[in-house]
Amino acid sequence: MDIDQLRQAHPDHWMRATALRALALDAVANANSGHSGMPIGMADVATVLFSRHMKFDAKAPDWADRDRFILSAGHGSMLLYGLLALCGDDEITLDEVKKFRQLHARTAGHPENFMARAIEVTTGPLGQGIANSVGFAIAEEALRARFGNKLVDHHTYVIAGDGCLMEGVSHEAIGLAGRQGLGRLVVFWDDNGITIDGKVSIADKTDQLKRFEAAGWHVQAIDGHDPEAIDKAIAAAKAETARPSMIACKTHIALGHAAQDTAKGHGALTDGDQNKAAKAAWGWEAAPFEIPSDILSWWRDVGSRGAAEREAWEGRLAEASGARQAEFARTMGGEAPKKLSATIKALKKQASEEAPKHATRKSSEIVLSAINPIMPETIGGSADLTGSNNTLTKDLGTFDTDNRKGRHIFYGIREHGMAAAMNGMALHGGVRPYGGTFMAFTDYARPSMRLAALSRIPTVFVMTHDSIGLGEDGPTHQPVEHLAISRATPNTLVFRPADTVETAEAWEIALRQTSRPSVLSLTRQGLPTVRTEHKTANLTEKGAYVLADAEGKRQAILMATGSEVSVAMAARDILQAEAIGTRVVSMPSWELFEEQDEKYRRRVLPGGPVRVAVEAAVRMGWDRWLFGERGKREKSGFVGMHGFGASAPAERLFEHFGITPEAVAQKVRDLLEGRWAPDPRT
Amino acid sequence: MDIDQLRQAHPDHWMRATALRALALDAVANANSGHSGMPIGMADVATVLFSRHMKFDAKAPDWADRDRFILSAGHGSMLLYGLLALCGDDEITLDEVKKFRQLHARTAGHPENFMARAIEVTTGPLGQGIANSVGFAIAEEALRARFGNKLVDHHTYVIAGDGCLMEGVSHEAIGLAGRQGLGRLVVFWDDNGITIDGKVSIADKTDQLKRFEAAGWHVQAIDGHDPEAIDKAIAAAKAETARPSMIACKTHIALGHAAQDTAKGHGALTDGDQNKAAKAAWGWEAAPFEIPSDILSWWRDVGSRGAAEREAWEGRLAEASGARQAEFARTMGGEAPKKLSATIKALKKQASEEAPKHATRKSSEIVLSAINPIMPETIGGSADLTGSNNTLTKDLGTFDTDNRKGRHIFYGIREHGMAAAMNGMALHGGVRPYGGTFMAFTDYARPSMRLAALSRIPTVFVMTHDSIGLGEDGPTHQPVEHLAISRATPNTLVFRPADTVETAEAWEIALRQTSRPSVLSLTRQGLPTVRTEHKTANLTEKGAYVLADAEGKRQAILMATGSEVSVAMAARDILQAEAIGTRVVSMPSWELFEEQDEKYRRRVLPGGPVRVAVEAAVRMGWDRWLFGERGKREKSGFVGMHGFGASAPAERLFEHFGITPEAVAQKVRDLLEGRWAPDPRT
Repeated sequence: MDIDQLRQAHPDHWMRATALRALALDAVANANSGHSGMPIGMADVATVLFSRHMKFDAKAPDWADRDRFILSAGHGSMLLYGLLALCGDDEITLDEVKKFRQLHARTAGHPENFMARAIEVTTGPLGQGIANSVGFAIAEEALRARFGNKLVDHHTYVIAGDGCLMEGVSHEAIGLAGRQGLGRLVVFWDDNGITIDGKVSIADKTDQLKRFEAAGWHVQAIDGHDPEAIDKAIAAAKAETARPSMIACKTHIALGHAAQDTAKGHGALTDGDQNKAAKAAWGWEAAPFEIPSDILSWWRDVGSRGAAEREAWEGRLAEASGARQAEFARTMGGEAPKKLSATIKALKKQASEEAPKHATRKSSEIVLSAINPIMPETIGGSADLTGSNNTLTKDLGTFDTDNRKGRHIFYGIREHGMAAAMNGMALHGGVRPYGGTFMAFTDYARPSMRLAALSRIPTVFVMTHDSIGLGEDGPTHQPVEHLAISRATPNTLVFRPADTVETAEAWEIALRQTSRPSVLSLTRQGLPTVRTEHKTANLTEKGAYVLADAEGKRQAILMATGSEVSVAMAARDILQAEAIGTRVVSMPSWELFEEQDEKYRRRVLPGGPVRVAVEAAVRMGWDRWLFGERGKREKSGFVGMHGFGASAPAERLFEHFGITPEAVAQKVRDLLEGRWAPDPRT
Repeated sequence: MDIDQLRQAHPDHWMRATALRALALDAVANANSGHSGMPIGMADVATVLFSRHMKFDAKAPDWADRDRFILSAGHGSMLLYGLLALCGDDEITLDEVKKFRQLHARTAGHPENFMARAIEVTTGPLGQGIANSVGFAIAEEALRARFGNKLVDHHTYVIAGDGCLMEGVSHEAIGLAGRQGLGRLVVFWDDNGITIDGKVSIADKTDQLKRFEAAGWHVQAIDGHDPEAIDKAIAAAKAETARPSMIACKTHIALGHAAQDTAKGHGALTDGDQNKAAKAAWGWEAAPFEIPSDILSWWRDVGSRGAAEREAWEGRLAEASGARQAEFARTMGGEAPKKLSATIKALKKQASEEAPKHATRKSSEIVLSAINPIMPETIGGSADLTGSNNTLTKDLGTFDTDNRKGRHIFYGIREHGMAAAMNGMALHGGVRPYGGTFMAFTDYARPSMRLAALSRIPTVFVMTHDSIGLGEDGPTHQPVEHLAISRATPNTLVFRPADTVETAEAWEIALRQTSRPSVLSLTRQGLPTVRTEHKTANLTEKGAYVLADAEGKRQAILMATGSEVSVAMAARDILQAEAIGTRVVSMPSWELFEEQDEKYRRRVLPGGPVRVAVEAAVRMGWDRWLFGERGKREKSGFVGMHGFGASAPAERLFEHFGITPEAVAQKVRDLLEGRWAPDPRT
C-alpha cells in the first residue's frame, strides 16, 4: 500500500482518520495490550461514517433517535474509544483513553455497554455484535411503526470482521435480517484477510459477497481506504430500503506499520521504533495522545453536527400529546405499566380459585395473553417452536416486511440468533423482547444468554420442556444440567414456577427488571395448581416460601421447584398420613431467595428437621440448601437426576429415575430413622 | 404430487421405498409420538443411497471401512431404524421398531449412537450431524493418508433438513468442509419447504445452493422422489473428489398423506383413518409392521450386498504386516500406546526436578510435544488461537488439501464447528481429536460438548485462559461460571491442573478415556511448579490428594484447583509461620475424586479442621466439599469470584477480587476465631 498516495489523494481526510490511528497505537502501546491493527485499518471507514452519515450528538448519547453504531469486532475497541473521545463524549474522554485496559477505567479491553452511555453494546465474543444489530434494526422498525417516523427514523451501522463472519451466529443473523428485509441495517465487513492464526485463507475461502446475496442482502465491495468510495457506498446502502446492506471494505490491517497485512498486526503493536516509523509514514507528528488542535476541532464539530437535528426532534416530541410523550418515555425507559400489578393479581386470583391443571408453558401463554394487551412494547417469538413454547398470543400479529406492527417473530431454527437479536432489542430500548425454545437448547443460545447477564439487560428467555417430563424425545432434548448452568451465571434470574400462579408472579418480576435477564423454566407436562389460596403478595419475589407447613411436629422440610413441587406436596400427604409433620418449601428462584435477609431465610429453612430437595435435574448447587442454611449432610437427601435422561413416555421416566412422591417419602423416612447413605454426589 | 405417476414410473423402487414409509407411519402411530413426515419424504433418497451406493454389510456394522451414514435431521429417526431393520441389523430389528420410543428400547426418539453399533451418531439437536460429518470426512482423509486406500476408502453421507441448515453451526461446518475440500462428503438436503412453525419461507429465504457454492461446495438440485435422478446425482457427487457435495432434494414431506406439505406432516401422524388412506394411496396393503416377503428379501440383499467387499477388505488387512495390523486395530480401538505411561512419567520427573514456572497452557504444549510423536492418531487444532492455546507442536504439520498427513487443523473462528468436527472424528474412530479455544468460549461449543458427553466419546477440549488471570481482555473473555457448567454436565471429566506435573497427569488420563470427554482448564498466566517431589503414581487420577500436609496440629484444610493451588500454598506458608497447621489439597478433578471410595476421601478431607476453598470462579458446586464431606458451614469459607470479572492486568485483578494468599490466610484466621460470616452465596 502506498501511504503517500493515500495521504496526497485526500490530505484532510487522511489526517483526521489518522488521529484515530495514532490514538489506537498510543493506547495499546501504553497498555502493552490490546489490538492495534483493526482500528488502524478501519479508521477511514469510521471517519467517513461518523462525519458524513451517523446521526448523533456527542453531548446527548441517550438521544432516542440517534443512529446506532455497533463494533462487532470488539477487540478493535480503540476505534470506538477514539471516535468517542475525539467527538467530545463526556465519559470516554482522552484521559480515559490513556487508562485503556486499566482497572476502573471506562475503556475496558472490549467495549462494555455499562461503562458509558455512548457504548451501545458489549462486544468481543465474535459474531455477537452483528447478531445484536438485527435486533436493533427490528426494534427501530417496530418503534417506527408504533410512534411514526417523526420520532423514530434511524439506522444501525455495524463493523464486523472475518471472525464475526466465520462464527455460526452470523449465519443465523444474516438469514434473519435478509428474510425480514431490514433496510436500515448497514454492515461494514473489514475485509483485511487476516486473523490471529494468519491469513484468512488458511481456514476459510467463503465468497462473502455471494453468501450475503444468497441470504437476500444488498452487497457492495469497495476500497476501504478511499473516502469517496466509502461515502458513495454508504449512500447507496441507505438508498436501499428493502434489504439490509453489506459493504465489503478491502483494508490493510495495521496500515503503514511494519506489521501491516500480518497476523502480528492484529494484536498489540508495542515496538517503540516500529510505532515511531508508522507515525512517520502517516505524517503524524504529534506527541502520544496529543491531537493537533485543528484536527480535534474538526472532530468536535463532527460530534456536535447532530445537535440541531436532535433539537428539532425534541421539538417534534414536545408537539406530541402529553399521553404520547409519557408513553414514549415509559417504553424507552423500560418501565412496566402501572396496570401490570393489578392484571397479574386478577390472573392469580382466578387461577387460585379455578385451580386448573396446566403445563407451565401453557400457564405462561395465559399470562402473556393478559400482559401483551397492556404492554405494547413486548415483542415475542420462538425459534421454530411457537406452538410448543406458547409464545404467540391472540392479536399479537406477526412481525414481517409488510407488518412492522406485528409483535411475534418467527425466528426460524436459530436459537442463538434469536437470543442475540433479543439482546439487541433490549439494548436499543423501547421494546421488551421475550423468546422461546426448548430448555436443552440453552446450549445453543448460551453465548448470548451470558452476554445478556454481563450487559445488564432484561431479556426474557422462555425455556419450555424443562426436564425428562418432555418424554419420548429423549436425552438430547431433556435438560438436566441447564438449571445449574443458568444459576451459575452471575446476574441472571432463574425461575422455575410450579403452577399458573407462580408463573404469573415470575412474569411480573421478569417484566419489572431493568438490568438483568430472566430465564423461565417451564414444563411440557400438565401440573396441578398448588397455590390454591389466593395471596395478593408476589410470593415468588421472595425466591422461596412455605407453601404448606407441617401439621404437628415439624420433622421434615421438602424443597422443590417447578414440576416437582406437586411431587413434594404428594409426598407430604403420604408423610402426614404417617404423622410425620412435613413442610413444603417452593423455591421458584434461588437468586431472589439469596437476596432475602437472614431472618426470612431462617423462617423458611429453620435448622432441625431433615431436608429433602426434589428437582428433575442434576444436584449441582443444591448442597447450598441441603448442607448449608442450617441443614446437615447426614440429615439431608436429594431426589433428582444423576445423569442424562432417556427416551420414553414422561410418566415412565419419572418412575424409572425415581422422582416420585413415594421415593421422596421414603428418603424422609430413611433420614429420620438414621439410614442416611451418600449418593454419588452427596 | 401425483402418487400414481410415481408408483407407475418405478414400481419396484416405489414399493421398496414405501416399506420405509409404512414402518415410519406404523412406529410413530404406535408410539403416539415422533416424526412421520421426514422418513416418508426422504424414503426414495434413502432407498437409492443404501441399495446402489452405500458400502456396508449389515452383519458387520463395525467394519472399519464402511461408508458412514449420518441422519443429521435426527427427528426422522424412523428412517434410520427402518433402513437398519430392513437390511437385517442385529440390534435394530423389526421387533425393536415396534418398541419405538419406549423405555429400554434401542429405538430411542432420536438416534443414539450407544444404542446400536450401526448408529454412527447421536443426533436430534439440529445441525450437529452435518457438523459431525465434517469430522468423519477429515478422519477418513487422515486415516487414508496414514494407512493407504487399500484399507481406508469410504464416503460419508448425510441427510440434513432445513433446521440443520438454518442453525449457525452448519455455517461453520460447511465453511470448514469447503476450505478443506472434503470430496468424500455428500450431504443430501431434504428440501421439503416445511418446518414446525409452517413454511420455511416464514423465517428464511436463503438460496441454499448459492450459499453452499459460496463456501466452495459442489451443488446439484434434483427431484428427491425420482430414483434415477437421485442415483445420477450421487454418482456425480462421488465423481467430484476435490469438493464436498450438496444435493438439494426437492421432496414432499409426508408424501401421499393428508398432511403432505404441511407443518402437521412434520410431526406425529396418528389419525388412523388418514394413515389408512395414505397406505392405500401408496398401494401398501400389508398389516402394520409387516413387510411383504419379496420386499423384505430385496432389502436383506441390500444389507448383505457389501459382504464380499468387506471380506476382500479383510483379506487386504490380513496381508499387511503384523505390526501394521496391530497398529490399525489399536488406533481403531481407541487404545493408548504402551509407551504413554513411561513418557508421562519421564516428563513428570523432569518437571518435578526442574520446577519450571509455566502457564499450564504452556505445560500442555510441553506434554503434547512428548505425546504427539508416540501417538500418531492425535489430531490437534484450534479455533484461530493456535499460539494462545498452544495446541500445535513441532513436526505435527498442518492438515490441508495437499497434506492429509498433517495433524493440526486451523479450524478458523469456529468453536462450535471445531467441537462438532472433533466429535465426528472421535465417532469415526482411528483418530484422537483435541482442540483449543478460550475457556469462556465453552459457551460457543456447548451444544457439541454436551453431545460428546451424551455420546460417550473421548473428545478433548483444551480450554485456556481459564479465569480472570487472562487479564486485560476483560469479562467477556474471563470465564467465571464455565467450570461449573462443565462440572454440571454428566459424564464429563473436568481437569484444572496446577502445574506441569498435574497437566501431564491430566493428559494421560484424558488420552486413556474411551467413553467420556475431557475438559482441560488451563491458565494464560505463569504458575510455579507445586509438585516438586516426583511420584510415579498419577495423583490426578485420584481427583484430589494431599499436596502438602499440616505441620503440627492440623487446624485448616485449603482446597484449591489450578492456578489457585499456588495461592493456597503461599497461604499455607503464612499460616504455618503463625503455627497454624495447614493442609493443602489439590483437586484437579472433582469427578475422579467422587469416584474414590469413602476411605480415601475421608483421608484427604477428614472432619475437624476449618476449610477454605480457593478457585477463581463462582462458588457453585463447592458447597459439596465445604459443607458436605465432613465439613461444616460455620467452619468453612470460599475465596473466589462472586460475579463477572473486569478488564485490567491479571495481578491487579487477583488483588481487586481478593483472591490472594493473604485473603485466604485471613479467612482461615476468621474461621478459627469464630468470625464466620455468610457471603452472598454461603
